[in-house]
Amino acid sequence: MSNLLDQVNPELLRTYAFWSVILVAKMLLMSLFTTMTRIRKMAFINPEDVKSISPKLKPKVDDPDVERVRRAHRNDLENILPFFVVAFLYLLTNPDPWLATQLIRAAAAGRIVHSLVYAVMPVPQPARLFSFGVTLLVTVYMIVQCALYFM
Amino acid sequence: MSNLLDQVNPELLRTYAFWSVILVAKMLLMSLFTTMTRIRKMAFINPEDVKSISPKLKPKVDDPDVERVRRAHRNDLENILPFFVVAFLYLLTNPDPWLATQLIRAAAAGRIVHSLVYAVMPVPQPARLFSFGVTLLVTVYMIVQCALYFM
Amino acid sequence: MSNLLDQVNPELLRTYAFWSVILVAKMLLMSLFTTMTRIRKMAFINPEDVKSISPKLKPKVDDPDVERVRRAHRNDLENILPFFVVAFLYLLTNPDPWLATQLIRAAAAGRIVHSLVYAVMPVPQPARLFSFGVTLLVTVYMIVQCALYFM
Repeated sequence: MSNLLDQVNPELLRTYAFWSVILVAKMLLMSLFTTMTRIRKMAFINPEDVKSISPKLKPKVDDPDVERVRRAHRNDLENILPFFVVAFLYLLTNPDPWLATQLIRAAAAGRIVHSLVYAVMPVPQPARLFSFGVTLLVTVYMIVQCALYFM
Repeated sequence: MSNLLDQVNPELLRTYAFWSVILVAKMLLMSLFTTMTRIRKMAFINPEDVKSISPKLKPKVDDPDVERVRRAHRNDLENILPFFVVAFLYLLTNPDPWLATQLIRAAAAGRIVHSLVYAVMPVPQPARLFSFGVTLLVTVYMIVQCALYFM
Repeated sequence: MSNLLDQVNPELLRTYAFWSVILVAKMLLMSLFTTMTRIRKMAFINPEDVKSISPKLKPKVDDPDVERVRRAHRNDLENILPFFVVAFLYLLTNPDPWLATQLIRAAAAGRIVHSLVYAVMPVPQPARLFSFGVTLLVTVYMIVQCALYFM
């Protein structure tokens, strides 16, 4: 059996790499957005952060806006990081390049929309559910293809 | 020095890929299980989720059953995601194929049992500690092998 | 177009692999440190853990020292795990070996110092901010390089 890593389509690897770094950039923006929300609401947790702002400020662990951004960020960890692994392994299964390209783009778009409707400007459901579902369905499809291919 | 990526044993890469997507599937089931537990306990956090269920419902952030599933899920993020990285790098160290296969299977089994005894049907300790320990020991062994090989 | 995976500099891959497993080891130590802090403060969450220690002990979810270590650990998940992906993809962009080596070392050092000043022995700001910033800047630089190369 030849080396699986050699059969990765180079154009697909570029697509994967490009959208992966875009998604990491999006995740890092969640950290920044958490800090911005902490400043806006004056809701800091660590005593040394509180002290560096004002001696009168008290730590605040349950600001609803800060916690909302943190939940959106944690949802990224739960979904985007596993996607990086599954999508890379899916590239080794010799998929149809057109289909694989659309799947990667759809998964990335789903997570970008998810962050917007969850953390940046909350909108009524099912906006968050739909954007979450797009990436989830792509991931599940890739898992099934990988499980059948590598079994 | 030849390319390290070329010396990956193709059969080992298949084993790694198969168990990796199984573990990602298992992690995604934790998301589903969190949602199922939220519905069973009527414990939703986001105001727009609460509203879409019933206008009388109030957000609830500290349901013990929901938080338990979320801790199990976070434990997955802390242990399974780093395992994906370490196990892939371990494949580059030209390990004994039989040993590497057993280690990957043991690590995957450890995490599956961990989820069952932590989130699905809680059992007394040390069931969770043992299942946690199996994957941890495999990961530590691979870290040591990698550190020595790549130093 | 030739296979991108073949053009990875083997020495750089070794540097990447070595520091990656060191960072995973550091992350796993955070789990251990959380458990040690739970024991020191007698602050356990799961009822079965509490029972296995003493029948009189009650679960405790908000110990400030335990939560501090957990925040440091979560910050690792948010920053180190994405770094593994970005740095690997950056290796495919044919970077200058000397520069790439220094960047990987700086990013790893940043996270090790971050854990020390956040969780092990809290020091006043901006120690945590600076160590956080070093790895963040390296990651952002790699994201930009990757986005331009793979676009």
